[in-house]
Amino acid sequence: MKHIYQDDSFTLHTDLYQINMTETYWRDGIHNKRAVFELFFRKLPFGNGYAVFAGLEKVIQFIQNFRFTEEDIKYLKNEVGYEDDFLNYLKDLRFTGNIRAMKEGEIVFANEPILRVDAPLAEAQLIETALLNIVNYQTLIATKAARIKHVVGDEVAMEFGTRRAQEMDAAIWGTRAAYLAGFEATSNVRAGKIFGIPVAGTHAHAMVQAYKDEYEAFRKYAETHKDCVFLVDTYDTLRLGVPNAIKVAKEMGDKINFVGIRLDSGDLAYLSKEARKMLDEAGFKDAKIFASSDLDEYTIINLKAQGAKIDSWGIGTKLITAYDQAALGAVYKIVAIENEKGELEDTIKISSNPEKVTTPGLKKVYRIINNKNHHAEGDYIALEDEILPEKRLRMFHPTHTYLNKIVTNFTAKELHVDIFNDGKLVYEIPTLEESRNYLKENLDALWDEYKRTMNPEFYPVDLSQKCWDNKMKNIEEVKEKVSAMKE
Amino acid sequence: MKHIYQDDSFTLHTDLYQINMTETYWRDGIHNKRAVFELFFRKLPFGNGYAVFAGLEKVIQFIQNFRFTEEDIKYLKNEVGYEDDFLNYLKDLRFTGNIRAMKEGEIVFANEPILRVDAPLAEAQLIETALLNIVNYQTLIATKAARIKHVVGDEVAMEFGTRRAQEMDAAIWGTRAAYLAGFEATSNVRAGKIFGIPVAGTHAHAMVQAYKDEYEAFRKYAETHKDCVFLVDTYDTLRLGVPNAIKVAKEMGDKINFVGIRLDSGDLAYLSKEARKMLDEAGFKDAKIFASSDLDEYTIINLKAQGAKIDSWGIGTKLITAYDQAALGAVYKIVAIENEKGELEDTIKISSNPEKVTTPGLKKVYRIINNKNHHAEGDYIALEDEILPEKRLRMFHPTHTYLNKIVTNFTAKELHVDIFNDGKLVYEIPTLEESRNYLKENLDALWDEYKRTMNPEFYPVDLSQKCWDNKMKNIEEVKEKVSAMKE
Repeated sequence: MKHIYQDDSFTLHTDLYQINMTETYWRDGIHNKRAVFELFFRKLPFGNGYAVFAGLEKVIQFIQNFRFTEEDIKYLKNEVGYEDDFLNYLKDLRFTGNIRAMKEGEIVFANEPILRVDAPLAEAQLIETALLNIVNYQTLIATKAARIKHVVGDEVAMEFGTRRAQEMDAAIWGTRAAYLAGFEATSNVRAGKIFGIPVAGTHAHAMVQAYKDEYEAFRKYAETHKDCVFLVDTYDTLRLGVPNAIKVAKEMGDKINFVGIRLDSGDLAYLSKEARKMLDEAGFKDAKIFASSDLDEYTIINLKAQGAKIDSWGIGTKLITAYDQAALGAVYKIVAIENEKGELEDTIKISSNPEKVTTPGLKKVYRIINNKNHHAEGDYIALEDEILPEKRLRMFHPTHTYLNKIVTNFTAKELHVDIFNDGKLVYEIPTLEESRNYLKENLDALWDEYKRTMNPEFYPVDLSQKCWDNKMKNIEEVKEKVSAMKE
Repeated sequence: MKHIYQDDSFTLHTDLYQINMTETYWRDGIHNKRAVFELFFRKLPFGNGYAVFAGLEKVIQFIQNFRFTEEDIKYLKNEVGYEDDFLNYLKDLRFTGNIRAMKEGEIVFANEPILRVDAPLAEAQLIETALLNIVNYQTLIATKAARIKHVVGDEVAMEFGTRRAQEMDAAIWGTRAAYLAGFEATSNVRAGKIFGIPVAGTHAHAMVQAYKDEYEAFRKYAETHKDCVFLVDTYDTLRLGVPNAIKVAKEMGDKINFVGIRLDSGDLAYLSKEARKMLDEAGFKDAKIFASSDLDEYTIINLKAQGAKIDSWGIGTKLITAYDQAALGAVYKIVAIENEKGELEDTIKISSNPEKVTTPGLKKVYRIINNKNHHAEGDYIALEDEILPEKRLRMFHPTHTYLNKIVTNFTAKELHVDIFNDGKLVYEIPTLEESRNYLKENLDALWDEYKRTMNPEFYPVDLSQKCWDNKMKNIEEVKEKVSAMKE
C-alpha cells in the first residue's frame, strides 16, 4: 500500500461539511452553544408496519472513541488545509454532551425521534454522519430480518449472506441485526466470535467437486463430523444427492447425527416434498430439510403455500443487503439551539415536500399502552416539559387531524433512556441476548395487524396538541420572514 | 461491551462451512492437494454493458494478513468445539498458493474469471467468503459509478453517500470504487485520508438553522472560509436562498471565492434554471450550481433532457448502496483438483439452471483487439495451455453457437496478471490514480455501443473450441454417473 496516513481512526468518518461548519462555529465562538438534534426516518421500509431499532451499541463505541488522532490532524492540515488554531481545538475535542435513545430492539415508527443528541453545537454536528451510517443500516436489516422471521415462524432462520454483503462491516453488523431480530444462527464465524451468535453450516458444492464423487464426499464428511447436513444438489438432487445422503446415513448409523439435507437450487417446493418422502421411507423421519437460494419473506410465504417441506431456512443476499430497499433514509435534524440569552430556542427546516418539514423543540416519545389488553394504542410525541394527562388522552393524526381518538385507562411508557450524560456513558449496555428478548416481548405485545407482511394496518404516531401548535407557530414565523424578504 | 473475544482478526470472516470442509480435508489428508478456483459473476448488473473490476487491493490486504490469531483458535475451540489437533494445523496456516487476477479498473463481463486461486485445497477454501464479500461489493459500486459518470460526462461527480451506506466499510470502500470509476471527489473525510481521494463539501441545513437566519449563516460561513458554496434550500430556494447567497457574495467581493450554490430538494430542473438566471443577472456568471437529492443515472439523464443548469452532481444513496441492484452475485467455483497421480483434473458443477453449470479447467482470458481500430472484438476464454492462433481466430457464442465470427489482424491481450506466487506478493500494487487512469483508457477503447445506459449492445465473451469441448465432455461424464445411479 502506498498510503501516507496509515492510522485509521473513525472520527474522520464524517462528511467534510461537518468540519467546515464546525470551523465557522468555532471562529464565530458559537461552537459550545447547546444544540439539540434528533435522529428519525420519514417512511417505514419494505411497506412494513413497524421498524426495529438497532445500532445503539456501535453508536456508543463510536462516541466513546471520538477523538481526532495525530494522523487525522496531520491529514486535515496537509491535505485539506485547515489552520493550526482550529486544528488545536479539534485535537482536544471529546464528546461532552447528552444522548438519549430508544433501546436496541425497540419497535419504532416513522417520524419519531429514535435518538436525541443534546450537546455543544460542534460536537453534535461532527458525530452526525457516523450515527446515521450506523443506525440506517442496522435498523434496516433488523427490520428486514424481523419481517422474514415473522413468516418463518417457529422454524429456524439462519443468516447466510456474508459473500453478498456490502463489504465486511455490513456482513457482521448485518448478521448481528438479524440475530437481534430473531434469527437463530449465522454462517459468519467472525460474527460468532465477536457477538456470541451461534454459527451454522456444513459443507459446500466445492467439497463434493473436490472428491469428484458425491457419495465419497458425504462419507468423508460423515467420518470427520458428528453432526451431518449433506448438500444434495451438486449434480442431481433426487437421483444422486438424496440417495447418497441416505446411503451414508444408513452406513454410518449411530456414529453420526444425521441432521438432514440441504437444498440450494432448483424447485424447492417440489424437491423438498420429494426429498421428504424419500427420507421418511428410508426411516429418517427426524432428518430436517434445510433450504437456501435467494430466499426472502415473499419466496418463503410462497413455498409454504405450496406445502414445501422445509424445516430450516438459510437467508442470504435479500436479507443482508435489504435487496428490495437498500437504504432506510434516516436523517438527523436540529430542533433547538441556544439563543443569546442562554435559553434553548426552537428551530425548523421548511420544505416544499410537507413530509420534510421538521418538528421543532425537544420531545419525548411515549408508547400509549391500553391497560386492559396490554397492546399499544399508538405512540404520542409530546414536548419535553409536558406532563401527560393521566386519565384522558386525545390522540390525533399530525397531518389528517380529523383522525383522532380519546384514550382512557392507559399507561404511557417513555421510550427514550439516558445513554450519555455530559459525555459519560450512563447506560448499562444489555447483552445481545437481552436485546433480542426485549424485541421478542415488544413484538408479542404488538397487534398482529401491524405485523403482517403485506398491507399492515397504519400505526398511529401522534403529536401532542402543544407540540403541533408549536410546529405551526414555527412555520408561520418562517413564512413571515419569506414574505418580508419578498417585499 | 461484554464480548469475551476482543481481538478482531479478519481470518474468521468466513462461513463456518469452509472450516468444516477444511477439517474433512485435513483429517482425510487431502488439504494440500492442489485446487483451482475461479471467481466470476453470471450476469452484468443494472443491465449495463460491462462491469468494472474493483476490490483487488483489499483482497491483497486480506491474503497478506491471513492467519488465525490465538483468540480465533480459542473461540473455535471453546465455542465451536473443534479439536486441538485440527486447531494446531489452523494455527500455523498461511496462504502459500498462487493468485492471478485482472487489474483493478479492468473492464469485465459475465462468466469470465476475474480472479483465479491456485492453492492447497484448504487454503483456497478458507479465503473464499472474504474474497467474494470484497469483490462483489467493490465491483458493483465501481460499475454503478461508471454508469453514473458516463451520463455526468465532463461535469463533476461527487460521492456523498456515507450516511446511507451499508455500514462503515461500505462507505469508504464504496467511495474508493466511485473514485476509481471516474468520480472527482467524496464527502467522506476518512476515505480522503486513507485513499488520498479529494474531499468536498461546504455546509448543511443545520448551520442555517443554528443561526436561525440564512443571511447571517451565509455571512458567517463566508467570513470563515475562502471557497464558498451556499446551500440555498433551507427555507425557500428562490425567494430567500439564492438572494441571500448573492447578497453575501456581493458584500464579500474578493474576500471570498464564490464557487456557487447548492440545491438539495425540490424541482431541480426548474430551480436550477431560475437560479442560473438570478446568478447571471447578479453578475456571477462563473458561479456553479451544485445539485443533490436522490440522484442516479436516470434522474441525471432526465434533468439534462430538461435543460437543467447543473454543473456539479452530488450522488448519495443510489450509488453507495447500488440501490437498484444491491448485490452483484459473483461466485467462486472449483474448476480443477489434483488427482491421486498428482495431476490436475477438471471438475464441474451441474445445475438444472444452464447458466449455473460451471466451465471446468484452468483458463485464461484474452481481450481480442482489432489492430485497425484498436477496439475490442470481444473476449476469448481459452484453456491455460492453449496457444492462440496468430492470424485467424474463430469466436462463437458459448450457448448460441451459431453466433460466430472469424477475426483476423488482432492482438490478444491476456487480462490476468500474477498477484501471489507461492504465497508471496509479486504484484506491484498501482496507486489509486493509476488504476483510475487505467480504467479511463479502457473505457475510451470500448465501443460506445457497450457504454450506453439503456439496452447496450451485447459484448461477446466466447469460449475456445477446446474449452467448449472440454466442458461438454465433463457434462457427459456426470450424466453417465447419474444414469448409472438410476439403474
